[in-house]
Amino acid sequence: VRSAVAIEKETPENERPETFLRQSDGGLVSSSSSSGPGSSVRARFEKMIRDAQDSVCEAIEAADGGGTFKEDVWSRPGGGGGISRVLQDGAVWEKAGVNVSVVYGVMPPEAYRAAKGEGNSGAKAGPVPFFAAGISSVLHPKNPFAPTLHFNYRYFETDAPKDVPGAPRQWWFGGGTDLTPAYIFEEDVKHFHSVQKSACDKFDPSFYPRFKKWCDDYFYIKHRNERRGLGGIFFDDLNDYDQEMLLGFATECANSVVPAYIPIIERRKDTPFTEKHKAWQQLRRGRYVEFNLVYDRGTTFGLKTGGRMESILVSLPLTARWEYDHRPKEGSEEWKLLDACINPKEWL
Amino acid sequence: VRSAVAIEKETPENERPETFLRQSDGGLVSSSSSSGPGSSVRARFEKMIRDAQDSVCEAIEAADGGGTFKEDVWSRPGGGGGISRVLQDGAVWEKAGVNVSVVYGVMPPEAYRAAKGEGNSGAKAGPVPFFAAGISSVLHPKNPFAPTLHFNYRYFETDAPKDVPGAPRQWWFGGGTDLTPAYIFEEDVKHFHSVQKSACDKFDPSFYPRFKKWCDDYFYIKHRNERRGLGGIFFDDLNDYDQEMLLGFATECANSVVPAYIPIIERRKDTPFTEKHKAWQQLRRGRYVEFNLVYDRGTTFGLKTGGRMESILVSLPLTARWEYDHRPKEGSEEWKLLDACINPKEWL
Repeated sequence: VRSAVAIEKETPENERPETFLRQSDGGLVSSSSSSGPGSSVRARFEKMIRDAQDSVCEAIEAADGGGTFKEDVWSRPGGGGGISRVLQDGAVWEKAGVNVSVVYGVMPPEAYRAAKGEGNSGAKAGPVPFFAAGISSVLHPKNPFAPTLHFNYRYFETDAPKDVPGAPRQWWFGGGTDLTPAYIFEEDVKHFHSVQKSACDKFDPSFYPRFKKWCDDYFYIKHRNERRGLGGIFFDDLNDYDQEMLLGFATECANSVVPAYIPIIERRKDTPFTEKHKAWQQLRRGRYVEFNLVYDRGTTFGLKTGGRMESILVSLPLTARWEYDHRPKEGSEEWKLLDACINPKEWL
Repeated sequence: VRSAVAIEKETPENERPETFLRQSDGGLVSSSSSSGPGSSVRARFEKMIRDAQDSVCEAIEAADGGGTFKEDVWSRPGGGGGISRVLQDGAVWEKAGVNVSVVYGVMPPEAYRAAKGEGNSGAKAGPVPFFAAGISSVLHPKNPFAPTLHFNYRYFETDAPKDVPGAPRQWWFGGGTDLTPAYIFEEDVKHFHSVQKSACDKFDPSFYPRFKKWCDDYFYIKHRNERRGLGGIFFDDLNDYDQEMLLGFATECANSVVPAYIPIIERRKDTPFTEKHKAWQQLRRGRYVEFNLVYDRGTTFGLKTGGRMESILVSLPLTARWEYDHRPKEGSEEWKLLDACINPKEWL
């Protein structure tokens, strides 16, 4: 699905609009109309991610107790836009970004057919318009014992191709939440994974084991044969369940971010540390940069298609470090983290 | 040419061999035989890059006055290998890597045909063995007024395909030397470029203007619309000149590294600086990481084909920094550097 798609340049806005949807998608509809176009999945997903952005930012500011988010609002001429919020150099977090975006684009017909699971044999079709909306966040704390968190939930929908009668609209959900500590505290990792499992289990008992493995497979730094962190859940191209059910699942996952993460931060944000702990955190931040710039689909796709660069790269840590051929001493706390990144564990 | 090529895992060696060439390529030949296989271009290129590694490392250690290079030697079962030398946390350089490597590999026939400038219409051919040798170096100083230097010179040769009678052996040279300061000192940049131009002019007056532009085009960070630094020279796939002439040119370029760079380091290594200067250097180091991990062919190709990861990533700085939406004040020294990265200048 991620073939050549180019999107327009964004323009800054002074105010948050009520919605980034095109009017034809339910934009600018009064809130009193309960069954109007505002009840489309597009509109409900946008509302969900914007509510999630508000509640996560509120929780982060409260836990930080010092920093505040700076907001940038932007739109694109043909519809869509986004809100980037960044808290930099706070008391607890050195860099925390929470972004939402709504994108209208056009994909090549081959990508539409690939998404439908068809080959190139179909009738000759033109480019297919698509809609994508998502929330994406990376939170890098200062304290080396406090873990980095990443989460991202997104919804994708094509129009029904107009020139191929009967060809259906395609849609899918993707996302996940994962934890990247520099040091392992078993109670933290167990807590984090148990919140993910609870969210999954409300919808399907197969979700947690399947999405936990998907996460371990996805956040893999191939050239190092290690994962970026200790995982969580990840899923993509999910459309083989009821659409309402998956919208509910994505909402539950987004609502689980604060209870999964903030209690860990409260426990670790003031733990005393040394230069040695900080240097190891910085080396692991280097791995984070390697994964995001070399492998992460959202980052590489976003940079290549002309997405808003500053919003995409807010995922990078404030600082990172690379030492030649660094190897932690076997049995050390640093080695234990590395071992768990090389050999993913079942935490529950 | 850079299609699916996988190379074997390297094994560490305790000693530097006299040559990494296969015996059939002139390896293990006594130095008394003057016209033996040791006079092949493969053998002479290996000797040139190993001599250059020695002389550059010697000059770096002398200028550093504190740090020493740590050496790793490695080989591959089917022939080839390399020597990685890294000076870390010296008095002047925070990280300096100078690597040579010799690789024997096998490329798909399509890649061979593409290199020859042919389509897929040729006779059905099998995989084509190739030979590649190169020196690659990145030198990151500590002082924010002392620039980073990169250089890389490489020689590539295929065997004549055995199953297509008459199909020729292919060969080409590639490489370049470029300067990446965080602050502009015109006399430094002029000195650097003038040494590059002198090396070029000894061979062809068209080389400097052509390879200067090629360098500006190559080290381009597309998602930021800026170059990584202030350029130098860069060329690739060069085979439309006499082979002896190009071997001489690559040798001249490698020999120009020390006179182009060390005088600049001597001038800047002890310049007093503030936290603000250091932070800007760190932001520019972040750009260096972005270019190398997202765009640099050597890095992305090396990581994907299973090259020696630690040797490849020694190009990354010891530390780097990313701030959200950082914009230097117009007219400031930081802005001047950024402007020269956005709008490449003629320095001579």
